[in-house]
Formats: sequence, C-alpha cells, structure tokens
Amino acid sequence: MTGTKHLGRQTVRFESPPSILSAASVVGKKEGEGPLKDRFDILASDTKFGQDTWEKAESQMQTLALQEALKKADLSYASVDMLFGGDLLNQCIGTSFAARGTDIPFLGLYGACSTMGESLSLAAMAVEGGYAEYAAAMTSSHFASAERQYRTPLEYGGQRTPTAQWTVTGAGAVILGQAGTPPFVRGFTSGKVVDLDVADANNMGAAMAPAFVDTVLAHFRDTGKRPSDYDLIVSGDLGQVGLDLARDLLSREGLDLGNRLGDCGTMIYDREAQDVHAGGSGCGCSAVVFAGHLLKLLETGKLKHLLFCPTGALLSPVSTQQGQSIPAICHAVAVSSEGGCL
Amino acid sequence: MTGTKHLGRQTVRFESPPSILSAASVVGKKEGEGPLKDRFDILASDTKFGQDTWEKAESQMQTLALQEALKKADLSYASVDMLFGGDLLNQCIGTSFAARGTDIPFLGLYGACSTMGESLSLAAMAVEGGYAEYAAAMTSSHFASAERQYRTPLEYGGQRTPTAQWTVTGAGAVILGQAGTPPFVRGFTSGKVVDLDVADANNMGAAMAPAFVDTVLAHFRDTGKRPSDYDLIVSGDLGQVGLDLARDLLSREGLDLGNRLGDCGTMIYDREAQDVHAGGSGCGCSAVVFAGHLLKLLETGKLKHLLFCPTGALLSPVSTQQGQSIPAICHAVAVSSEGGCL
Repeated sequence: MTGTKHLGRQTVRFESPPSILSAASVVGKKEGEGPLKDRFDILASDTKFGQDTWEKAESQMQTLALQEALKKADLSYASVDMLFGGDLLNQCIGTSFAARGTDIPFLGLYGACSTMGESLSLAAMAVEGGYAEYAAAMTSSHFASAERQYRTPLEYGGQRTPTAQWTVTGAGAVILGQAGTPPFVRGFTSGKVVDLDVADANNMGAAMAPAFVDTVLAHFRDTGKRPSDYDLIVSGDLGQVGLDLARDLLSREGLDLGNRLGDCGTMIYDREAQDVHAGGSGCGCSAVVFAGHLLKLLETGKLKHLLFCPTGALLSPVSTQQGQSIPAICHAVAVSSEGGCL
Repeated sequence: MTGTKHLGRQTVRFESPPSILSAASVVGKKEGEGPLKDRFDILASDTKFGQDTWEKAESQMQTLALQEALKKADLSYASVDMLFGGDLLNQCIGTSFAARGTDIPFLGLYGACSTMGESLSLAAMAVEGGYAEYAAAMTSSHFASAERQYRTPLEYGGQRTPTAQWTVTGAGAVILGQAGTPPFVRGFTSGKVVDLDVADANNMGAAMAPAFVDTVLAHFRDTGKRPSDYDLIVSGDLGQVGLDLARDLLSREGLDLGNRLGDCGTMIYDREAQDVHAGGSGCGCSAVVFAGHLLKLLETGKLKHLLFCPTGALLSPVSTQQGQSIPAICHAVAVSSEGGCL
C-alpha cells in the first residue's frame, strides 16, 4: 500500500476518501453581523458565552461546536475515537479545557491559524487508515483572548495598522467517518515552514502569503492537477493584503487563479462597514467559514472541488520581541462532492 | 482493514509495526552531570548552544537532535515526509523555528510533556498507513525558557516547593520507517484529558498521575494485556511525588507494577545530589530518556517490551491565575524488540 497513498513529498492521496459527516460553527456578535451571518449554526448575543473569562468563553465555543456537530451526525462523545484540535492561546488551553469534558482521546495540535487544515488532514488520515472509526477536527479563536495575549489589553485602546487583521471569535468542529457519502476528503498537502523574512507582526498576511503559495504549488506538483481542477482554492486567513500578495506571487509562477482564488479572512466580514482593516484571522476564521459556508456550497452543488488551505503565522510575542521574522505554514485539504482518487 | 487496527476505544494496534530507525538526544549541562550522562549523544558545555536567547537555544537543540538522528539513519531532511513535533513554549516557537530550516512538511503538536508520546504515535501511524515513507518525532524543553515563561525570571531567585520538578534542558528526535528491523512501535493508546481537581501548579506530578493511570488502564483494557507482558512501564515525568501517587492509584485498581514501573523524571537526575526536588519534567525529559536511554536498553536486549507513557499537564499560567484546576493527559506507546501484533 505504501507508495500509492503517499504522492510526491508533501501530499497524501486517499484511496478510500473519508466522508465529512457533519460540521458546526459557533460565532460571536461581530461575525453574526457579517456577510455570512446566515450560514452559522450558533450566533452569540453574549460574546462571553456565559463564562466569566474570555478564555473560558473560547473553550465554551468549542464545546458548543463539537456538541452541535455530533448532534447533526447523530453521534455522541462516546462514538469519537480521536479528537484533533487546537487554538491560539498559550498552551492551547482553549482546546484542552474543551476536551476535558468530552472523554474523547485527544491529540492536541498547534499550527496557529493553519490548525483547521492540520486537524482535518490528521483526522482524515486516522479514519482512512482504519485507526479511528470516527474522528473530530476542531479549532477556535476569540478576539478578546487573542488581543490581550498577542497585542495589548482591550482597555488600552491601541490603534490598529491598516495591514492588521481582526481575530475571529468563533469555533468550528467537523466529524469524519468512512460513510461513503459526500463531501469527501480526497487528500491533503502538508505545508513546510516558509519564512521570507517578514518581521511585522501587524502584517501577518504578508508573512503567510508565501507559505500559501508554496503549499499550493506543492499540491499541483505532487498531484499533477491544475487550477481548473478546482472550483475554489481558498486560503485560511491571508486577509486582503496577503491575498493580493499571494495573487502576485502565484502569477510570477505562471498561475492565474482568477475567480477561483478566495480567502476566508476576506469572506467573513464586510471590511469597510465592519472596520476590520485587512480582514479576519485566527484559528476560528477558516474553521467557521469552512464548517458554516464552504461545506454548504459543496452540499448544495455550488462547489464540486474545493482546495481548502488554512494558513498560519508561527510567531509568538517573544519571538517578535527578540527580533525574529515570522515563519508561516499552510496545510491544504482537498474536499470534494465526489469520491475517487486525487 | 478497519476494525482490526483500531482496538477498543483508545488503542491502535499496528499490523505492520514501523521501525524506529534511529534516535538522538541533546542535553544541557545539568543533565550531562546526572546518572544518564553516558547515554546522550550531545552534551552541552554552553547551555545557550551558541545562541543569544534561551528560546533560540531550545530551537538549536531540536535542530541538533534531528540532524544527529538523521545522520545515524543515513538519511537527510529531504528523505523525511512528515515531522511531528512540539515543545512547551508559547506558540511552540521552539519547534516551529527548528522546523523552519528543514524543508520537511511539518505537523505541529501541543501535548505539554506528553508530546513525545503524541508525536511518536502520529509518526508511527503515518508510516504504517503508507502516508509517509519516513517520519520524525521530536520535542524539547529548556529550563531557562520554561522558568521565565511559566514561573518567574531566573534572576528573581524564587524558592521552589518540595513537590516542584526541574524542567529538563534537552531535545530528542526519533526517525521512523517501515524497515522490518527492531525496535518496533507496535501500537499506542491515546489519552483522554483527566482532571481530578488538582490546582497547585507546583505539584504537576499529582495532576498528571491520574492521567497516567487512566491511560495505562485503558491500554490493558483495550489490548487484553497484563503488566507482566511488559518489562518496563515508564511514565513521562511524574517525578517522585507523582510516581508514588500513581503507584497508589494503580494498587487501588488491583495493579501492583512493582519494579516494572519507572518514571523518566526520576531517572534523569540524582534527586538528592542535584537538588531537583521531585525530579525532572518538560517535553525534553521523556524525549531524551527515551532516545538516549530506553531505546538502548531495547537494542541491547535489557528490555524486550516497553510501554512508554509520556504525561502532560495542560495548564497555562493564565488558566492557573483564573483559578482553574490542571487538566492532564498521557499517551502510551508500546515499543518492542519484537514485531508482531500487540
């Protein structure tokens, strides 16, 4: 079997593509006022989700997303053999504390905002390999917990630069199993860490764009596919600045993706009306756009072949203070309304 | 194939157990003066490893460990299809920055001090499933980067409590492939998040002991194996306090592991002479004890069947300040000098 599943250096092709059985999205107030407001399962009027801290609120979003996704699939905690998840908080407490109540074997991940791609890849691998009957992939971010951890306390009222992105308050959960029904995860391309020496922590789109391009090129190289094989190639959260850069970098490689190229960070907010500068970001951004919006496009036939490419900036406040540039990564997952090989 | 690989709820049994092709360990000065000093590959005289910050030193240890492990296996960065790794630093910068220079597809993990178990499990799964020809598992910790992040700046000279553990300065890397040669990874048991309401961040052994016991019991339940099937069942870094508690908890379940029970955190230092209180801890602790010591016991026939059980405390300074108790997790990996089914 070895050699056929493993395509080129970075790409895995599933011989028996696992199914996405269900997905759920939970968002905060601002996301519930944006262009995708009708696509999410749970919209909070209280962005603290009934908790007394922002960090607990973030965990609570994950709990709600996982419970809702399981309900849709008519499954319970006890059915899930592996839970792959992560978030942006130090020591990933958003996810660990959400996993605490579930009794599901837990594999914690850290890929910054690429984590939804990483968790989907590994959950699909566990299911296709027969290592788990059902697996879950789950990530979150929260504007208020992220701001005070990465930048300044909200009360400080710091000015944001035009290249800055707005961390999405949201959590997404996806349940995978070997059901034979669409949508299918047909394969994935794991990213390398790419660092083109961007050091501005307020311009993570610029830091992540080269990682997105690197993974997309690797995907085409490994699979022999072309852009026209996909209806949509969507980056995680490059925002408008990073998306423009990615388009430019791709065109230098001879790839014009045109309308096939999109970005979760530019989809989730009305950038002008909602004052989010370059767009949305955070582990929760690609998670809720995927779980709430993109999967529905696949289910209703508006999309047939999707390359979902969450992007992550692997910096920390300490690495920035120490003068380091920003390493970035992008994990691409091929999701389709048809089965069959990549 | 589904159903045979997946044993009970938490355990994976490999039908074609992957081989551990090589491993390497890099340690700091204190670890190089302890009882296992002759077992490690690289011992630092300079605990900054030639870098200008402790965080960069931690990355450098990972780089050295990975390079040394690859050299032993006569492989290069270009041969490895997936790198699974993590550390204790905020946003896991120890590993991300080490992965940056390698050009290897990178899957970042966070499982606190259980990460060596998690990375070995997933790397073995990727190899056995045919998703990667060669995969690497790698973790690190550094006393100085951990102290200032989790506790107080070193210059503060804070007093340590008797239950506190000493974060190991070290990194371990393991290379896996389908070679048919011992030692083999025969399977693994993924842990659930267990929280018995221990809230003292200076007594992580007590917080982690119930997670260790939970995973060990799950392993025996899922596999039908008994303690006598293993020569050594070794926890990651419970330290002496946690190890005593684990022994007590196991005996209440009717399991007396006697001399078969060990702990990486009590092996790496001379607790009295080296003034480390309850013992060693950190992602690097179980990594270097496994890569430097336990694998050699398997290779020289002194051990035949090992259950390697790294344990992690999934707290953060923020969760502790917010009054939360400490969730913990333990991932068990069955490593043997014989192949065959678990």
